[in-house]
Amino acid sequence: MSKTEFDIVIIGGGPGGYVAAIRGAQLGLNIAVVEAAHLGGICLNWGCIPTKALLRSSEINHLLHHLGEFGFAADNIRFDLDKVVKRSRKVAGQLSSGVAHLLKKNKVTVFDGFGKLADKDGARRKVEVSKDGKPVATLTAPHVILATGARARVLPGLEPDGKLIWSYREAMVPTELPKRLMVIGSGAIGVEFASFYRNMGAEVTLVEVLDRILPVEDEEISALAHKAFLKQGMTILTGAKIGAVRKNGDSVTVPVEAGGKSQEITVDRVISAVGIVGNVENLGLDGTAIAVDRTHIKVDPYCRTGEPGIYAIGDIAGPPWLAHKASHEGVLCVEAIAGHTIHPIDPTNIPGCTYCRPQIASVGLTEARAKDAGHKVRVGRFPFIGNGKAIAAGEPEGMVKTVFDATTGELLGAHMIGAEVTEMIQGYVIARTSELTEAELKETVFPHPTISETMHEAVLAAYDGALHI
Amino acid sequence: MSKTEFDIVIIGGGPGGYVAAIRGAQLGLNIAVVEAAHLGGICLNWGCIPTKALLRSSEINHLLHHLGEFGFAADNIRFDLDKVVKRSRKVAGQLSSGVAHLLKKNKVTVFDGFGKLADKDGARRKVEVSKDGKPVATLTAPHVILATGARARVLPGLEPDGKLIWSYREAMVPTELPKRLMVIGSGAIGVEFASFYRNMGAEVTLVEVLDRILPVEDEEISALAHKAFLKQGMTILTGAKIGAVRKNGDSVTVPVEAGGKSQEITVDRVISAVGIVGNVENLGLDGTAIAVDRTHIKVDPYCRTGEPGIYAIGDIAGPPWLAHKASHEGVLCVEAIAGHTIHPIDPTNIPGCTYCRPQIASVGLTEARAKDAGHKVRVGRFPFIGNGKAIAAGEPEGMVKTVFDATTGELLGAHMIGAEVTEMIQGYVIARTSELTEAELKETVFPHPTISETMHEAVLAAYDGALHI
Repeated sequence: MSKTEFDIVIIGGGPGGYVAAIRGAQLGLNIAVVEAAHLGGICLNWGCIPTKALLRSSEINHLLHHLGEFGFAADNIRFDLDKVVKRSRKVAGQLSSGVAHLLKKNKVTVFDGFGKLADKDGARRKVEVSKDGKPVATLTAPHVILATGARARVLPGLEPDGKLIWSYREAMVPTELPKRLMVIGSGAIGVEFASFYRNMGAEVTLVEVLDRILPVEDEEISALAHKAFLKQGMTILTGAKIGAVRKNGDSVTVPVEAGGKSQEITVDRVISAVGIVGNVENLGLDGTAIAVDRTHIKVDPYCRTGEPGIYAIGDIAGPPWLAHKASHEGVLCVEAIAGHTIHPIDPTNIPGCTYCRPQIASVGLTEARAKDAGHKVRVGRFPFIGNGKAIAAGEPEGMVKTVFDATTGELLGAHMIGAEVTEMIQGYVIARTSELTEAELKETVFPHPTISETMHEAVLAAYDGALHI
Repeated sequence: MSKTEFDIVIIGGGPGGYVAAIRGAQLGLNIAVVEAAHLGGICLNWGCIPTKALLRSSEINHLLHHLGEFGFAADNIRFDLDKVVKRSRKVAGQLSSGVAHLLKKNKVTVFDGFGKLADKDGARRKVEVSKDGKPVATLTAPHVILATGARARVLPGLEPDGKLIWSYREAMVPTELPKRLMVIGSGAIGVEFASFYRNMGAEVTLVEVLDRILPVEDEEISALAHKAFLKQGMTILTGAKIGAVRKNGDSVTVPVEAGGKSQEITVDRVISAVGIVGNVENLGLDGTAIAVDRTHIKVDPYCRTGEPGIYAIGDIAGPPWLAHKASHEGVLCVEAIAGHTIHPIDPTNIPGCTYCRPQIASVGLTEARAKDAGHKVRVGRFPFIGNGKAIAAGEPEGMVKTVFDATTGELLGAHMIGAEVTEMIQGYVIARTSELTEAELKETVFPHPTISETMHEAVLAAYDGALHI
């Protein structure tokens, strides 16, 4: 009989849960992880990681059709979609096995099943584990972390049917490239799929209900992305309302009202990417003091729910719905349980990345939000066209925007679009986390020739000292 | 007659001089730049920038021969070396024109000629400008900045002959790809050319007199680069002594003694990349209080020479011989002249980048130097193979190493090898410049999935908390 008493039971083995487990094991705690599907969660199996493998392929396809610019040529350029998808699945599989290995190495006990809170057992919390509806084990621990994540939100009439209407899941394993594709929703997920399919050669229509794409980004970044996508041949409809879709055998007709115009658009496939909902069902929350607000569990800055000994981290604990937020919460939550003093996360220090072409990355407040929050701001901008490395790399499309508090010099936000920005944003995240001001950033010697010099110039620009423009 | 009286005369229009000029103009000073060759200097015309354009092409060539890994195929893959070189020259030309435009926009007066210090005129310094040996103008200013840069060091017997033995200059504009190439010197310049030519298909022998390649880098980084280059098919000879080379029509025979073995290696071309010497000749330094030590002008931390009113910045003022060091010194020097309070550069806060494949980037002290300096160190390492994005991008080869002071937690140095590290290093540079410790870096939420997460893990690893290994 396997062990059933732990220091912490974690329900959910995604980037929140498995990272919390590893950290807990490092701190000498006995940890169990209960996972119903794949270790690594959506992120690793059906999200962040396999999409990045697909997007790498689509970047290559783009490059292969622009070889002449770099002095190269090739004939009969082609791809095998099945191989592209298989590579993506292989990467996901490799990393999921890696997580299993890490948990084993750290002596974390993994239960394959669905975890649910049960009645208390004195000071210990009980978690019932079932598999295919049958009880597998009853675990107890003084601390239980809920990390069950989220799933795609489904709009009535746009229910994924596995054939014509896709969620992220079907969109990640196409058996053939749709000629005409509509992506509904222009957050990070929608935009990444739009970018992947467009760069692979599909005709893509991107539809957004709000008045601009990538609505959480700074308005100027949204506008530059919009312009870049149009140039790549996408159709973009913003402020758009979708009517009742009609399925016609092997295509879908979608009535769209946008810009005062009604039209019917017929496409081969539709991807619905209209947000996510938390996996709060069947977790045993009824009758507890755990509060749920619109499918998300309410927590305090230490990830504590209303019920003593029960914590929630990651997507189920609310936005931003990002793997690195989940992992960081997992570490903090476990460190707090182990008695460490922790600094709760400031949500404005959590970067967001979108891996479309051009890439987008940001941290902190947009210019509009900074003003709404009452800041007097200084704004700096620097375009990639003024950067030698961007030009040498053939990537002159991009911009960095900084937002400073005019009074204190605090870096309130940084917003980037262009090549490599997802790898570059961490410099600004370090700056924000350490509450640096323009003074330290000005003084930093950025290496030449790098695109990261645009980060320096955008700081200098906010203080009227940009050098290369 | 054009104006001849200025607040500052700058001799040399490279990344030190032209940046100093722009900054001076921003501060309301009247500036002249005297440039004998190309605005933008070696960096922009024959160094950093055109090599990056070439290296981008060679990365593409590598990718084109590994398309199958990503699900792609193409026939008859080829390149036109002339087009590859022309693209590189075009990028350099575009940026050099950009500098001319920036100087004009900032109302900097540019003199096309060779500048030389002349006698004083009261409190004003005099600079004679000549072109093709004929006097063009005599300029005066209370401040003169020497920014004449450096040139390739020439070893006896390895004098560049424009045909068989190349300096960086000939190496940048090949008319055909040498089948067999020897690169002598494995600093950043030598290694970048070795990487370019190898990735374009040449057989490359890299020769280094010291006991390891990239001798300024951390020993572990040198070793990983060595291993990667061997895997790519390079031949590497370290601790190697070169004998008298023999030219045979269209090839060169080089006697090399290395590892207790003497051999004669015949190649089609030799690139000599054995360091640089400062351009201190004919500058009018004789009889002044300006001290020169092994072709470099001695300066204090404020870029002041021994002669009042005369400053030196960039390569001519000594190592590290890096464009961003020159630019930063240019800004500081001019700000000090304008009466600003400045913080002199700490050389250990200047990053270095080498754009070979895999890329290399570092800042601060190597582990060995940190120990030599008396630090008790904590060292963290994290390999790219533990990083999801690196795997998804097909770039699992790489490592990040951090060196902390065990007592204070100060980040003493960071050393990176792998994809995108040249764009990532700035995060560590910000950290070093702001004297951050492991505490702030641990707390920073690095975005997922990015290769930059390895930077976080390498910090955690130094404190026994790496998550994904």
